[in-house]
Amino acid sequence: MSHGRGNEKKHRQECLRRNILLVLAYEGTSYRGWQFQPGEPTIQGVLQEKISIMTGEQVVLIGSGRTDAGVHALAQVANFRTSSRIPMDGFLRGLNSLLPDDIVVREIREVPDGFHSRYCARSKVYRYVVHNDDVPDPFWRRFAWTIRGDLDVEAMNEAARALLGQRNFAAFQAAGCSASHPVRTVMMARWRRIGRNNSLFEIEADGFLRHMVRNIVGTLVEVGRQKLDSGHVERILTGKNRQEAGITAPARGLFLKGVRYIA
Amino acid sequence: MSHGRGNEKKHRQECLRRNILLVLAYEGTSYRGWQFQPGEPTIQGVLQEKISIMTGEQVVLIGSGRTDAGVHALAQVANFRTSSRIPMDGFLRGLNSLLPDDIVVREIREVPDGFHSRYCARSKVYRYVVHNDDVPDPFWRRFAWTIRGDLDVEAMNEAARALLGQRNFAAFQAAGCSASHPVRTVMMARWRRIGRNNSLFEIEADGFLRHMVRNIVGTLVEVGRQKLDSGHVERILTGKNRQEAGITAPARGLFLKGVRYIA
Repeated sequence: MSHGRGNEKKHRQECLRRNILLVLAYEGTSYRGWQFQPGEPTIQGVLQEKISIMTGEQVVLIGSGRTDAGVHALAQVANFRTSSRIPMDGFLRGLNSLLPDDIVVREIREVPDGFHSRYCARSKVYRYVVHNDDVPDPFWRRFAWTIRGDLDVEAMNEAARALLGQRNFAAFQAAGCSASHPVRTVMMARWRRIGRNNSLFEIEADGFLRHMVRNIVGTLVEVGRQKLDSGHVERILTGKNRQEAGITAPARGLFLKGVRYIA
Repeated sequence: MSHGRGNEKKHRQECLRRNILLVLAYEGTSYRGWQFQPGEPTIQGVLQEKISIMTGEQVVLIGSGRTDAGVHALAQVANFRTSSRIPMDGFLRGLNSLLPDDIVVREIREVPDGFHSRYCARSKVYRYVVHNDDVPDPFWRRFAWTIRGDLDVEAMNEAARALLGQRNFAAFQAAGCSASHPVRTVMMARWRRIGRNNSLFEIEADGFLRHMVRNIVGTLVEVGRQKLDSGHVERILTGKNRQEAGITAPARGLFLKGVRYIA
């Protein structure tokens, strides 16, 4: 045996710790985003605090990725390790009763030790909601970008096709983005109309740069308003210049819809 | 001439005053209901204050009816009189810029002098939203009653048929309701499923007693959960006893959908 008694004990304890996966829905309106910041309201911070109350341990909650201030999630995925033996069903109810109304644990389950919410994620799907209306709608104000006048959804879809495949998204990246390189693979990018007043954009990629979806949406909306032609997106991607792209669409219309994992 | 100089002048001034109709949408979450109460946040109070800023006059805003604390409106109708000459389009923009985000003027127009939002209303349509989910959904928490387990929409619709026509709704009236008599005519009362998780109730009547929709919904949901049989609604109406009806469904699921006027 190469390792001593202390290591063996530590190893045994480590194996006893369960790896717990959470599927989370949250309204981001009142938070400074996912990422823990001391003294600030953050999704990760609130969850870590409540999980610690449940388990009696300090926990680190690993998210599939950060969401910015004001961005929502329909199904964010996160995991943490605990030696607590609380049954999963009781954990779900207990945690939801401790959490504020705008953060909800939708599912909880034990996963294999190797599972990591961020590293194992194969792709993520984001949704962006645009509400078309001449006057603001009090029921959409937290969940959509309200735009006066009509959008040409056909033209936006034509422009969105340029995003598909492996591309360099430098032009759609926020200043200060910490990603090591700006190449991402987009598997799906599509607008559709929902009812008379809403246009919904969904985009799936193996990863997203900071503000990437919101910068893409800001640009595609310019196309939809016929201020840019649909060929412009291709030119922006090729030019790799942030100044060429449209404005950053507001956070409130953006939802992390889901995270896909290998198998 | 039977009236003197003073009366004539007053009459002329009165005729110069325009009668302005507003169509309003609001989220009721933060308000103590429609009805003005000194020192309390109310929809009527906020609107009167902002209209007074626009017109420079004290105005009385007449609503089609009160909505309770926490109840929302998709299209409440109200009217007021003013001698202000501000064009309607500017009035709409100005008022919306003064109003908080949760109250919106959707339409504004001048109407004949005889129009009165309450007296001229022929019928009102209310909508109630039930969200079926095992865990609460952060996006529905302000706009629906979340119920665990499934509802039998067929049975609820069968039970709702007993409400149609001219009936005595004493059993569905809140204590302290100031209505002179409890007879109302219901023209429509129907549940439908929207997507996988929502059930939507719509009811149209020539008038509603206090908490009438919420008491009806509370009772119909008991039917949908198979705690009451669908014949029970008929027995409640006949018995006229509030104790026999179900609980009062929460305000947050209720929306005033619209008001119908004679021609």
